[in-house]
Amino acid sequence: MSRAFNFCAGPAALPEAVLRQAQAELLEWGAERASVMEVSHRGAAFEALVAQAEADLRSLMGIPDDYAVLFLQGGATQQFALLPMNLAAPGQGADYVVSGHWSQRAVAEGEPHVRTRVLVDAADAAGLYLRAPEVDAAAVDPDAAYLHYCHNETIHGVEFPAVPDSGAVPLVGDFSSTILSRPLDVARFGVIYAGAQKNIGPSGLALVIVRRDLLERAGQPRARVLTWAAHARAGSLLHTPPTFSIYLAALVFAWLREMGGLEVMAAINQRKAQRLYHAIDDSEGFYRNPVDPASRSWMNVPFWLHDEGLNAAFLEESREAGLLALKGHREIGGLRASLYNAMPEAGVAALTDFMGDFARRKG
Amino acid sequence: MSRAFNFCAGPAALPEAVLRQAQAELLEWGAERASVMEVSHRGAAFEALVAQAEADLRSLMGIPDDYAVLFLQGGATQQFALLPMNLAAPGQGADYVVSGHWSQRAVAEGEPHVRTRVLVDAADAAGLYLRAPEVDAAAVDPDAAYLHYCHNETIHGVEFPAVPDSGAVPLVGDFSSTILSRPLDVARFGVIYAGAQKNIGPSGLALVIVRRDLLERAGQPRARVLTWAAHARAGSLLHTPPTFSIYLAALVFAWLREMGGLEVMAAINQRKAQRLYHAIDDSEGFYRNPVDPASRSWMNVPFWLHDEGLNAAFLEESREAGLLALKGHREIGGLRASLYNAMPEAGVAALTDFMGDFARRKG
Repeated sequence: MSRAFNFCAGPAALPEAVLRQAQAELLEWGAERASVMEVSHRGAAFEALVAQAEADLRSLMGIPDDYAVLFLQGGATQQFALLPMNLAAPGQGADYVVSGHWSQRAVAEGEPHVRTRVLVDAADAAGLYLRAPEVDAAAVDPDAAYLHYCHNETIHGVEFPAVPDSGAVPLVGDFSSTILSRPLDVARFGVIYAGAQKNIGPSGLALVIVRRDLLERAGQPRARVLTWAAHARAGSLLHTPPTFSIYLAALVFAWLREMGGLEVMAAINQRKAQRLYHAIDDSEGFYRNPVDPASRSWMNVPFWLHDEGLNAAFLEESREAGLLALKGHREIGGLRASLYNAMPEAGVAALTDFMGDFARRKG
Repeated sequence: MSRAFNFCAGPAALPEAVLRQAQAELLEWGAERASVMEVSHRGAAFEALVAQAEADLRSLMGIPDDYAVLFLQGGATQQFALLPMNLAAPGQGADYVVSGHWSQRAVAEGEPHVRTRVLVDAADAAGLYLRAPEVDAAAVDPDAAYLHYCHNETIHGVEFPAVPDSGAVPLVGDFSSTILSRPLDVARFGVIYAGAQKNIGPSGLALVIVRRDLLERAGQPRARVLTWAAHARAGSLLHTPPTFSIYLAALVFAWLREMGGLEVMAAINQRKAQRLYHAIDDSEGFYRNPVDPASRSWMNVPFWLHDEGLNAAFLEESREAGLLALKGHREIGGLRASLYNAMPEAGVAALTDFMGDFARRKG
């Protein structure tokens, strides 16, 4: 057997060069005579690793100095709850934009901790999420603690073509599936957060980039471990962090710098997405992606066969061809290919070649 | 260079056999043609891994069926907050036993979420923690949500010689540094919890073993991701779990079963601790451990040189001799050796040999 092209939506493929380095030094990291998993997070070597990871991320994303960078646990899902705990006073409200599954989840997990209001829900008359909604800055409650949206809906394959305007209210963006895929103007945001398991590293890690003045908000009574400001003061070492996950994230950041940075990744990612959408759109209806072209995701491409009865054959044959994890999410069915940074262009070419061949044989 | 004996208190040494297996299959796990880090937590392979990990843990510890086993994120520190959120009604109190640093932290992190009361604080007149306190079951508030204690204080090296009696109130035990080191009567507890990074696996994972009737308690308004019952219903797959950490924990559980189980580990761990305490006690005052012998930890052995001016030489020379991470915790100074399951008897023998030689040369 050998490694195949892995289109999993998350936990997702990691760059093979990163995995090979981790494998080579898994038992002895640097001069430590121990695995990176076995050294103290208070030791000089690991503290230097965290500092380098943060510096590389700041350089890649152009994160201004008045933003803190936090490496936390619990994935993006836990941040759905920590957002209102940290940013909203008791009784205060927050506005939410709903554009698919994950922005709905953010509302549901936030509800016990803040008075949520759905500013706009992009579902069409049939309940489908096929486009990023317009956000009217004038409609945002000026007393809201924040406006939350999800920049890319991993399941529905719907991405905002531009960062929405939240007016004077801090904008909070869930970037779990699109962070680091292209440049982003961080200064537009109050908070950017992301689970790691798509474009950053393995699962078990969450990244929070937060404007420092927001750390001064009292929020709600809560333990220190649930308090962003406490993690910021401690440089993400408030308590034992997920050391191996941070180590792998650091290797991914270094790999992205070697690749040339986010402008280069953006060009690659755009080519990958275009190749796949072309294969779908040019298939004379054999394959179909119903998302409004202006809102199509570069990272997650759901698609459907004209005959759903062919799904099982498509999945079995693609797997045999070395193309993994193409099954669609159970919520909407069909097929899906995720094209995160670690997916090489050759992988997308192999997929579109397979799709063309499959269509010729079954069409 | 080569791997050395690593006495780090945590993140701690892992069994070398476990690391070698992880290294061998880091790029291709089983038949997956991808790393275990790169596969879906909803896929059959990973679901089977979680089920096997839970089954092995239940077998090792003899966990009764009326207890749920949860693999969570955030380490033990986050559980300090989740305990009262899940177990205490708004306004209800909880009793705490304080026997050192970590039981103090449990009180501090719990305070925003429950009316805490310190039932007993074992500090002596000088503020030192040198023995496990007596716990008077009759003194526990019968209306308390639970009685919390820390079975082994990692920093102070103080361990309860027996499980305390909490009467009719559920007993909650922090077993972060002693879980799996010997058999335990799980049925004595309402909740057993532990951070993984000492005796279970890498950091970034927490284990919670909770009697199922306690999952029925309403607790306090909170997000699903902070709710044990939701994680129990989802079989620890409520949201993306820390997949690599769970994988390594599963390898550790399998290794413990191969070693012969917890009775065998108890005998080994007792011999390791006795050897080190003998080396200290028989040093004619060159080394010193002031903990009451009945409360001495098998897992964490803090000790002091008669002349603190020799600390730097001890640390430098021991490191050169292949004995790592013997510096004491910054809170109490001195030296410390942690002897978790992964530390072989040969490592403790190498340490006591070094200590004898160092005493002869410097005494």
